[in-house]
Amino acid sequence: MELVRFDSLSLYDRLSQHCADQPDKLAAVTGDTRLTFGELARRVDGLISVLLDRGIGPGDRVLWLGQNSHHIFELVVACIRVGAMVCPVNWRQTTDELKFVLADWDPQVVVWQEGQIGDHLAELRDGRDVDDQRNWIPVDGNDGYEALVADGATGHSFARADEPISAGGLALYTAAFSGRPAAALLSEQGLYAQGVTHIPVLESRPDDVNLVVTPLFHVLSWVALLPVFISGGINVFIPRPNAEEICRAIAEVGATTGPLMPQTAMQVAEFNADGRYDLSGFRSALRVRGWRDMTTPGTTVGGYGQTETTGPILLAAADSKIGGPIRGRPSPIARVRVVDEHGDDVARGEVGEIVVAGPTVTTGFWNRPELTAERLRGDWWNTGDLGRCDEDGVYTFIGPNRRMIKTGGENVYPAEVESCLEAHADVKSAALIGLPDKTWGQLVTAIVERKPGSSLDAPALIADAQTKLAKYKAPRAVHFVDEMPMTAGGKDYAALDAQFGGGNYPGSH
Amino acid sequence: MELVRFDSLSLYDRLSQHCADQPDKLAAVTGDTRLTFGELARRVDGLISVLLDRGIGPGDRVLWLGQNSHHIFELVVACIRVGAMVCPVNWRQTTDELKFVLADWDPQVVVWQEGQIGDHLAELRDGRDVDDQRNWIPVDGNDGYEALVADGATGHSFARADEPISAGGLALYTAAFSGRPAAALLSEQGLYAQGVTHIPVLESRPDDVNLVVTPLFHVLSWVALLPVFISGGINVFIPRPNAEEICRAIAEVGATTGPLMPQTAMQVAEFNADGRYDLSGFRSALRVRGWRDMTTPGTTVGGYGQTETTGPILLAAADSKIGGPIRGRPSPIARVRVVDEHGDDVARGEVGEIVVAGPTVTTGFWNRPELTAERLRGDWWNTGDLGRCDEDGVYTFIGPNRRMIKTGGENVYPAEVESCLEAHADVKSAALIGLPDKTWGQLVTAIVERKPGSSLDAPALIADAQTKLAKYKAPRAVHFVDEMPMTAGGKDYAALDAQFGGGNYPGSH
Repeated sequence: MELVRFDSLSLYDRLSQHCADQPDKLAAVTGDTRLTFGELARRVDGLISVLLDRGIGPGDRVLWLGQNSHHIFELVVACIRVGAMVCPVNWRQTTDELKFVLADWDPQVVVWQEGQIGDHLAELRDGRDVDDQRNWIPVDGNDGYEALVADGATGHSFARADEPISAGGLALYTAAFSGRPAAALLSEQGLYAQGVTHIPVLESRPDDVNLVVTPLFHVLSWVALLPVFISGGINVFIPRPNAEEICRAIAEVGATTGPLMPQTAMQVAEFNADGRYDLSGFRSALRVRGWRDMTTPGTTVGGYGQTETTGPILLAAADSKIGGPIRGRPSPIARVRVVDEHGDDVARGEVGEIVVAGPTVTTGFWNRPELTAERLRGDWWNTGDLGRCDEDGVYTFIGPNRRMIKTGGENVYPAEVESCLEAHADVKSAALIGLPDKTWGQLVTAIVERKPGSSLDAPALIADAQTKLAKYKAPRAVHFVDEMPMTAGGKDYAALDAQFGGGNYPGSH
Repeated sequence: MELVRFDSLSLYDRLSQHCADQPDKLAAVTGDTRLTFGELARRVDGLISVLLDRGIGPGDRVLWLGQNSHHIFELVVACIRVGAMVCPVNWRQTTDELKFVLADWDPQVVVWQEGQIGDHLAELRDGRDVDDQRNWIPVDGNDGYEALVADGATGHSFARADEPISAGGLALYTAAFSGRPAAALLSEQGLYAQGVTHIPVLESRPDDVNLVVTPLFHVLSWVALLPVFISGGINVFIPRPNAEEICRAIAEVGATTGPLMPQTAMQVAEFNADGRYDLSGFRSALRVRGWRDMTTPGTTVGGYGQTETTGPILLAAADSKIGGPIRGRPSPIARVRVVDEHGDDVARGEVGEIVVAGPTVTTGFWNRPELTAERLRGDWWNTGDLGRCDEDGVYTFIGPNRRMIKTGGENVYPAEVESCLEAHADVKSAALIGLPDKTWGQLVTAIVERKPGSSLDAPALIADAQTKLAKYKAPRAVHFVDEMPMTAGGKDYAALDAQFGGGNYPGSH
């Protein structure tokens, strides 16, 4: 079977180069597993054989049901090499949400890791149709990923087809503005170009050891991982944020860099208050300054980007200030404009929608032609975010042009949560607001108008929501109102914010 | 007329972005001419109109007969935008050599600058066929470039064709291994990717002011110019090396960086021995460390590359030492191997030919299908240079696998000069060697066997060669031998080096 022609900037080629040059150099670590570039390359070759054996090729889809590990990196390199697309699932979601992803992404192959997806997995697997033709591959076990990859990694050579295709890539679910998540498809060209461009931004060096602790279903984890991989450094995968594992990765494996969510950093500081681990080799505070802002509004010099642009496309201006708004100049590989509702450039200093073109822009949303057409107009990607270009040519990110709540680094889209709450038999109307919180940025708070005669209480509604939504999306508090305040445009969020103390929305300052 | 679709990494787009963001920021300086990004963008748009009016499009060729200036940068951006190729001529050449380039490159448009190409120009222009259909455009004057560009820079909008083409690009004449120079075609994708990749290598910043004093017919000048342009800095063009102009560019325009040939640096030091200019803002010594080696063998930590790879493709390893051999690791955008004569990988530590793949590799030599086929095999470019990959995965450049002499930063190919000398009626055989020289690296020296009965003397042969060859190629000294020493493979250069003191060849150490 022929493989698709890889682009001249290929993750597989870079891995092959590292393998040829430094086969014995450490490349990836997950827990007790330590892989050199030689081992990683052989495993990827084995995985490619497995994928080809199962008929996986251009346009096909693979789902990773697991947390952070070298496996998902191997899957990305191998899947793109055969022209397929791979999606690391957001394992924080509920069983219902995971079922939605499984149905929507509709993968030919599901690779799953026991214990990580927890109780959901049994239901996902056992609840599937009897004629489910998917390949379900556990990581461990006799017929598992590890065994298959070892079998596949025998000598083989791949022929190349003449035509490059754009089908292969990384898929990340994002932005439920419309009430349901959609998978943004990121091309290898964009991922690779973003990786090279971020070598100076993150000051990546071949001797870097990058801590991959933010989840790999977030684009920023890839933006941090790729420059280090391309430079020949080490990536240390931490399955999920855990203060002790992070401390050990720094003190014992020598992690030097990597993004940490503020709450994770605080947990690490608390855990290591007695200084039992030497964390002095970690210089993340410096290294993440380019994009800490993207996870915590208004706290750093930051860059601006989104999943659909493969991360940062405005890089922090030299005069950006910590605590100020996100200001930046167009990345060397991005074209950026600010436009009005007709797509025309607004006057300098005026607020409009940020639109972006260039190799890092998503090729579209999987299975969402209408949403893709709405957002991708010609070369230009409509970010749905408001911005402004000032006299000095520096762009300022103002905020989403639709309401969004940010809690613990996660985006919560009111439409998605409200539609869940309103599906409850006792709820007539629900409005989601965010209350400022020192640790989490905002706390998700629901304002609810019950149906006449209902005696639904807050704990019951919250408990119900937690069965249907990822924990971070479910409201922490519910307040009941007799009648939902409305404006001509819909629910009167401004009035609700004023009444219940909402604030600290992304972009507000 | 439709323009070709630009690639997503386009010089024209980046110029448009700078123009939109910072129209009044200084972008380019040549002598008293100072151009902002706004002015530069309008001039390029004007130039595009001029080119389109004259029917210039995909596959067409433009020749720049001038020294360093913003004009050649404008020509590159505009020509690539319309799908054409532009070549900055090596103005150090003789009239005969320039005539060869004119015939070989066969341009539809020649832009020439009075005074810079000197006496050659009259002969080139006046000696042309009466039915010469080329557009000869002087820079100045009523019908000149400046007037045309001003006319052309009125409002206009360019439609785009759907299909990108690879025809547009920069052409640089190089490597006369075969006895006659050939123009290597460098794609915009390769130029742009190389520019982005060199932002960290050269530590380019938006406030950089780059001194363009090495000639723009050399690829390294572009490798230094592009990161600064992409970052939004200023490029200061010095027509030809001149100590006073360099001092003024540093002290008065604020030049901070840029490559200097060692002999130019020495001239500047001598000229400013009394310290009348403050040169402290210039940090070139630091900034060129990555590639000084490429112009002066064995003197720095260096990178390795060649014109046909758009410059450096091995970047200096962290443990490289000044004065040591050129050692480096593959650039993030290059694939590098060391192969034997069959194209198979040699064993680690063994010497073989360096071959390269990736976006920076030339698309081929203009008008030289056989030479292109010989050098470009599939994805892999045969550099003609010897190298080795050591146990630590670092590559070492050994030297050309054909003899080359390096003098004052210029490559001199014995075959070219010998064929010129042997065209003399009194010369039976000529062999070119290089004598070590502190200032110039090597001095070109000819060993000549006269025809029986000839009384040709050295000054006469040198004078004759100087009329046919660029001054740096013509021998500085000629020694006569009764009989040219030969080996089975040809002239016995080793014996000649031993007898006449040849040495310091590129890659020898």
